[in-house]
Amino acid sequence: MTIRTIAWHAGRVQMIDQRLLPWTFTVNEYSDYREGITAIKEMVIRGAPAIGAAGAFALALAAQSSPAADLPTLRADLEVPAIEISAARPTAINLRWAVDAMMRHVRTGDHPTADALRTALVAEACRIADDDVAINRQMGAHGAALVQRGWTVLHHCNTGSLATVDYGTALGVIRTAHEDGKEIRAVLTETRPRMQGARLSAWELNEYGVPFVIIPDSAAASTMGRGEINAVFVGADRVALNGDTANKIGTYMLAILAKEHGIPFYVVAPTSTIDLATPDGDAIPIEERGGDEVRQPYGNPLIPDHFPVRNPAFDVTPARYITGIVTEYGVARPPYNLAALPRTP
Amino acid sequence: MTIRTIAWHAGRVQMIDQRLLPWTFTVNEYSDYREGITAIKEMVIRGAPAIGAAGAFALALAAQSSPAADLPTLRADLEVPAIEISAARPTAINLRWAVDAMMRHVRTGDHPTADALRTALVAEACRIADDDVAINRQMGAHGAALVQRGWTVLHHCNTGSLATVDYGTALGVIRTAHEDGKEIRAVLTETRPRMQGARLSAWELNEYGVPFVIIPDSAAASTMGRGEINAVFVGADRVALNGDTANKIGTYMLAILAKEHGIPFYVVAPTSTIDLATPDGDAIPIEERGGDEVRQPYGNPLIPDHFPVRNPAFDVTPARYITGIVTEYGVARPPYNLAALPRTP
Repeated sequence: MTIRTIAWHAGRVQMIDQRLLPWTFTVNEYSDYREGITAIKEMVIRGAPAIGAAGAFALALAAQSSPAADLPTLRADLEVPAIEISAARPTAINLRWAVDAMMRHVRTGDHPTADALRTALVAEACRIADDDVAINRQMGAHGAALVQRGWTVLHHCNTGSLATVDYGTALGVIRTAHEDGKEIRAVLTETRPRMQGARLSAWELNEYGVPFVIIPDSAAASTMGRGEINAVFVGADRVALNGDTANKIGTYMLAILAKEHGIPFYVVAPTSTIDLATPDGDAIPIEERGGDEVRQPYGNPLIPDHFPVRNPAFDVTPARYITGIVTEYGVARPPYNLAALPRTP
Repeated sequence: MTIRTIAWHAGRVQMIDQRLLPWTFTVNEYSDYREGITAIKEMVIRGAPAIGAAGAFALALAAQSSPAADLPTLRADLEVPAIEISAARPTAINLRWAVDAMMRHVRTGDHPTADALRTALVAEACRIADDDVAINRQMGAHGAALVQRGWTVLHHCNTGSLATVDYGTALGVIRTAHEDGKEIRAVLTETRPRMQGARLSAWELNEYGVPFVIIPDSAAASTMGRGEINAVFVGADRVALNGDTANKIGTYMLAILAKEHGIPFYVVAPTSTIDLATPDGDAIPIEERGGDEVRQPYGNPLIPDHFPVRNPAFDVTPARYITGIVTEYGVARPPYNLAALPRTP
């Protein structure tokens, strides 16, 4: 894309409003960190790496709008926003990872004045965003090496430029393989309830010229059964140290189906998605979102309000179903000992 | 329900218009067999047993509106409608089964006059409809015997009163278990793209007072993974002699997930759904419906027209995933030799 999913511009955060794609390309601007939190909660921006960057920029906004004149007051002023931002969505660990990186500057950085800290926080958020793009290109290269010429790859949800600052994780692998001339093709699960596969990934692949087809999530099994899928690539919202992976609801389904059909199943995630504090998947909180996302997709009522609905936004795929985890440092293989990986700070 | 999904009334066929549920309860009336074919194609009525009855009534309409004055002319007049009706939808074998039953009367029945044949065809269609209700109650009893008190049962698509003439197949099992006081609970997959689970099965269970919750299809795996499902019950559109079963897209997914989680997986289908001419699932034609069902659920555009979509309406579950097949004669167990079962003519 010509512009990034999220960027800093003249004291404001700019975000592509992903709720309006693929119909309308709109960039929202926010100058208050609370607006940034609302944008994360309401999924103006989504995708673990992208909301990590959004959290960092939100903290930079909080510093900017704090009236604090001296460094100790500004530092104190940022403690509550840091907690609020980290809590905007519970499953993707990148959000907390980015806020923690920012708060290390706040708490221990060597800044002469409050304004120097404000400037440093903008610079740190921009570094996190820039690093994300570089990391995604590294993952794209590592992942594309797993893809053979002419393959059809199944992809879930959106993990592309829109889910990151730019380029993407799993969709970045597909993009790299395409750019490498491997003549690949993508099968995109529509990804109920919010249709990120059918709306966002399809929009991106259409822009990049990668051939694709959208299927209902429930058609993945028969598509695999007909021998039409060579590999599955998905992203991650949080990876535990043993390799258990939380990702968009339906990922666990795809992992089981891939195993049953003998299809390799790869997770593509930067090391910022690996949670050093989470030993296994049982410890990952799963966000339950409102039932109206299911009942009324994008405001169109399909199901009456009084019919009870469950809407878990994520599921956890046990490590035993995962053929490999692609990070910026290469492809980790089972048995996973992710604490031993190098990490991008 | 107080009225049947499909019925004959004063020379017309009445059908509940299932496209309008759960919002509006409307009964359409048809007097031309071509209207009946359109109603089947456009899914005013759906569900294998229900479209079987619809095919029978459509042929009765064709006889009624034929101008033939003598028996040989009427017999000849019905050959083309029989082919047209049988071809309205390709996967559910009940449609062809019912038309074949009707055509046995046309070709070999002992009728003194054309009008006598017309009367006999209405009677035969009504018998098929009445038999369906009786058969469903028998399957409900056989299936409910498999359900233990307090179980939570996962159910796909709609297989209830609306998918049959009345009472249902897999949903009939749930209804019987509920009526037997087993305090069961249902998890209903929404069943993209047409949402028969969320719209029709939920509407029925709400009427019957069975506790239920709707989930996106992709949430079935994690729901099973949390140990919340005790058994899966689904219907069928065509069962091959070896037990391979064509049913609503997503059924194969659920069967694999059930196996992986050690959950019993039952198909509930009358013997009219078993196709004596189909040795295994490879021989079952799978209907591919228009992509706009996926892109624009009920007319609400979620996906642009130029994004390619695949919309297979059914998939085939190999017999090895099926714990048992419940028919009106009891529960068949693997290895399946369905040619040996008694059959309701």
